[in-house]
Amino acid sequence: MSPDVDAILYRLAGMFNERSGFGVTDDTFHALSMLHRLGEPTWFALGDMDIGLHLLRSRLVHSGMRLTEAVADIAHRLAIDAAVLPMSDEPVRTRVLTDDGDLAMQRWFVEQKCAPPVRSLRYEGIEAAQPAPEVVQAVHDADAVVIGPSNPVLSIDPILTLLAPHLDRRRVIVVSPIVGGRSLKGPTVEMLRDLGEEPTTTGVAKHYARIARTVVIDPVDSATQA
Amino acid sequence: MSPDVDAILYRLAGMFNERSGFGVTDDTFHALSMLHRLGEPTWFALGDMDIGLHLLRSRLVHSGMRLTEAVADIAHRLAIDAAVLPMSDEPVRTRVLTDDGDLAMQRWFVEQKCAPPVRSLRYEGIEAAQPAPEVVQAVHDADAVVIGPSNPVLSIDPILTLLAPHLDRRRVIVVSPIVGGRSLKGPTVEMLRDLGEEPTTTGVAKHYARIARTVVIDPVDSATQA
Repeated sequence: MSPDVDAILYRLAGMFNERSGFGVTDDTFHALSMLHRLGEPTWFALGDMDIGLHLLRSRLVHSGMRLTEAVADIAHRLAIDAAVLPMSDEPVRTRVLTDDGDLAMQRWFVEQKCAPPVRSLRYEGIEAAQPAPEVVQAVHDADAVVIGPSNPVLSIDPILTLLAPHLDRRRVIVVSPIVGGRSLKGPTVEMLRDLGEEPTTTGVAKHYARIARTVVIDPVDSATQA
Repeated sequence: MSPDVDAILYRLAGMFNERSGFGVTDDTFHALSMLHRLGEPTWFALGDMDIGLHLLRSRLVHSGMRLTEAVADIAHRLAIDAAVLPMSDEPVRTRVLTDDGDLAMQRWFVEQKCAPPVRSLRYEGIEAAQPAPEVVQAVHDADAVVIGPSNPVLSIDPILTLLAPHLDRRRVIVVSPIVGGRSLKGPTVEMLRDLGEEPTTTGVAKHYARIARTVVIDPVDSATQA
């Protein structure tokens, strides 16, 4: 599973489930209902159409494709023109060390609904991972690299751990995920606070200071401009 | 996939799709519709609930279970009391050599609708396969071994290739799949004819002569009794 890469594929193909925030719109959950009957945990609501895509990707990767190639193949099959590039061909799994133990990221996020306070994050496999050649080439060729308003520690930092050496700070633009002290989506404010960072637009700017020269903020935060 | 073992599991669990002859009753095909959208062949109508069971079995086998153990685990989860035993823990794939080429059994059966005449059958992997200890024990302990009215060459022969040395002919009973010159189900008559065997109750009795002492036939075939 690569829920974030898939979210981008589904969005670009016009199939993204906006309401749930992942997977395919109007998906059904009959494979999951069978797994439930078989006594399996079903806290991760993987839809049937979503499983169809996972089955193809597994087959492509098992047949010898790198993940980057498999994602490009799937994007092509969905008539997506944009280049969708995972950060690496090697698996990297985010672990969340919480007051309730060391949890897989999706287990903390989905099953535990982000409730257990976060002590630290760990990216399992990151030491062995390399950015794929395609993604290194893409950031070298880019006029600008825009970092979306996503969770800086949960979603962006693992990518930066691999890609920071290849980024030209002058061409990197961050869109702040915090507006007026609240996160646009998800538990960004709570996580930054738990991890001892400043959960504000200023905190975001500090977090990315070594990576990006430009931070896009909302007019309501204009007083925080340096 | 193990469609025949699954058919037995589904039947014993009261979920078998009698109408299609495989899979789960009232299943949906949304994973398949995604695979179709992604340009994959979808001639094998694998349902969403069916995929749920396949995903669990794959996980169990990848986690180190033998196929026999995985099937027993799934049967237990479905509250099935009977012992459901595959013939082997090793994969064996039936290939059908036809006038249109060498086809995987399901491709000939499902995609080609049994149309290409059959020249011979081959069981890929059978040289390396062993019957699982559980199935050897089961036929040794059995008061009787009943071979159902299935296709002798397509369905039963691969099993007998492995199990014949462990069968006591006096305790083996075959139920004829041919009644009054017609097969109860599927292309048994056509296949036996294509392969140069006699497509009658008598032909069935000859086919199993070295394996079984008793052949159960329908009263309409009573004139064929030896």
